[in-house]
Amino acid sequence: MKQRIYIHDVAVRDGFQIEREFIPTETKVALIDELSKTGLAKIEVASFVSAKAIPNMRDAEQVLSLIERVPGVIYSVLAPNLRGVERAMQCHVDEINLFCSASESHNRANVNRAVAQSLQGFGEIMQALSGSDLKVNGNISTAFGCPFEGAVAPGKVFALVDQFLELGFDGVTIADTTGMANPKQVRELMTEIAKRCAEVELTLHFHNTRGMGLANVLAGLDAGVMRYDAALGGLGGCPFAPGASGNICTEDLVHMLESMGYDTGVNLDRLLKAAGKISGIVGHDVPGQVLKAGKSTDLHTLDSVASSAG
Amino acid sequence: MKQRIYIHDVAVRDGFQIEREFIPTETKVALIDELSKTGLAKIEVASFVSAKAIPNMRDAEQVLSLIERVPGVIYSVLAPNLRGVERAMQCHVDEINLFCSASESHNRANVNRAVAQSLQGFGEIMQALSGSDLKVNGNISTAFGCPFEGAVAPGKVFALVDQFLELGFDGVTIADTTGMANPKQVRELMTEIAKRCAEVELTLHFHNTRGMGLANVLAGLDAGVMRYDAALGGLGGCPFAPGASGNICTEDLVHMLESMGYDTGVNLDRLLKAAGKISGIVGHDVPGQVLKAGKSTDLHTLDSVASSAG
Repeated sequence: MKQRIYIHDVAVRDGFQIEREFIPTETKVALIDELSKTGLAKIEVASFVSAKAIPNMRDAEQVLSLIERVPGVIYSVLAPNLRGVERAMQCHVDEINLFCSASESHNRANVNRAVAQSLQGFGEIMQALSGSDLKVNGNISTAFGCPFEGAVAPGKVFALVDQFLELGFDGVTIADTTGMANPKQVRELMTEIAKRCAEVELTLHFHNTRGMGLANVLAGLDAGVMRYDAALGGLGGCPFAPGASGNICTEDLVHMLESMGYDTGVNLDRLLKAAGKISGIVGHDVPGQVLKAGKSTDLHTLDSVASSAG
Repeated sequence: MKQRIYIHDVAVRDGFQIEREFIPTETKVALIDELSKTGLAKIEVASFVSAKAIPNMRDAEQVLSLIERVPGVIYSVLAPNLRGVERAMQCHVDEINLFCSASESHNRANVNRAVAQSLQGFGEIMQALSGSDLKVNGNISTAFGCPFEGAVAPGKVFALVDQFLELGFDGVTIADTTGMANPKQVRELMTEIAKRCAEVELTLHFHNTRGMGLANVLAGLDAGVMRYDAALGGLGGCPFAPGASGNICTEDLVHMLESMGYDTGVNLDRLLKAAGKISGIVGHDVPGQVLKAGKSTDLHTLDSVASSAG
């Protein structure tokens, strides 16, 4: 029996949110519908933030009203506060993703709140959700390092995990928001967090900002983590690193995991077909490698060979 | 005590050899001289191949006559045959890198010989070198997969390793020539090869063609391998994957290893300074990430922040 690994695509949310040009609603819906048929476990389809702050997410309600849901796929949305959650509750959503940062200055920069205020807000949200069958996932941003403060003490992350569990969240995502994590750190931190999260779904969210994304996944696998966020084409990015890679690339991740004998449940050829459209949708090149190089099982003929070793 | 990892830069050879424009000799020499002062353990500075086959390596002798050698740095060259070795012996070279492929069709495409003929040639070369203090490294190309044949039986690689050891080589490099290796395969193959190579220097040579390069390094570290080839800027490439990444990127590799607490002996800031020149030298963008994103220890101020999580 192959071990199952669960893949969550966040391109439509974490990827599109930083694109300058508005991605038309029908393009988002068509992409989500195509992704729904690839075997992905979860798709993050929208963010209920202010349209002023993130113009590309202004059509969240429309996207959710137009997509064709495939049974078994979790359709997840991001919400920064109770207002966003209330909007999400009016739509057909499977899971709400709440977030706060492990570092105060990032949380302040991101949602203009102290971490304690974010946690208080989560308590109010959980009250508002009581009786609902909506799943709630809590995302800890900057868990492996903060672009303003640098190193983040593991104790801060553990404390947030514990508070998320006390709040009754169904899942916890540990996020390397700006691509600062290294594999040694991932192994150590996640081995401890995996113990605490034995009863909930534990997800890792990596960015490939400094090229360590898939190495960090390998470290996450060693720590027993079975769920990974990734973005089609490697979309996404970091405001501090223009031109750098974004989220780890969904098709490169699936390609690596399947090569290693894991069962991602994803049809890689279908996923690559969808990934092939991303560059046209966003109007620029994307970092994904397998799309350019082909799968490692793709064979070549002898007629196009440059000589010399390597 | 931090564990030492040895970094070999191959940009001037494996990187420049596929560039269309001739890189001027003085540019190569200046880059090698700059790399010599970064703390790299080895620099592959030239290839003694036919100028017709690889025009960018036609100045091998001049490069070797002009560089300023730094004590402790190994200056290595590639040689495809006895003729190349004889040319190298006329220069001041520390190490000759011989190569053959683990797959017949790749060896045929690369050097127009059967693997057995390559091995016979190596015997002749070792005779020609007897009495010389030149070190010899043997490189096994396509060890993790062949672009023509697909999977390569581990037994073929083990047999070549054994033959390299019998030939008296000082070092063995296991190369993933076209970026087909996955981390599980690397762990398994290299755990076995590391046992066989306990008495010689064992190096891994990865390409990031499908995004798995640094994940494969992590797997190599798990198998106990302490030496890695890489190319500044992530130069290099694969004739079958135009636009795809080349060799793993030296500065990204050093950044990851130092972040993990390894001692690479390399001054990352100096290396990044050299890496910053590569794009100008080759006249196109290069895949290295840390150059674009900065080191994970580089902090930012709060004034340039886009909101929303991730």
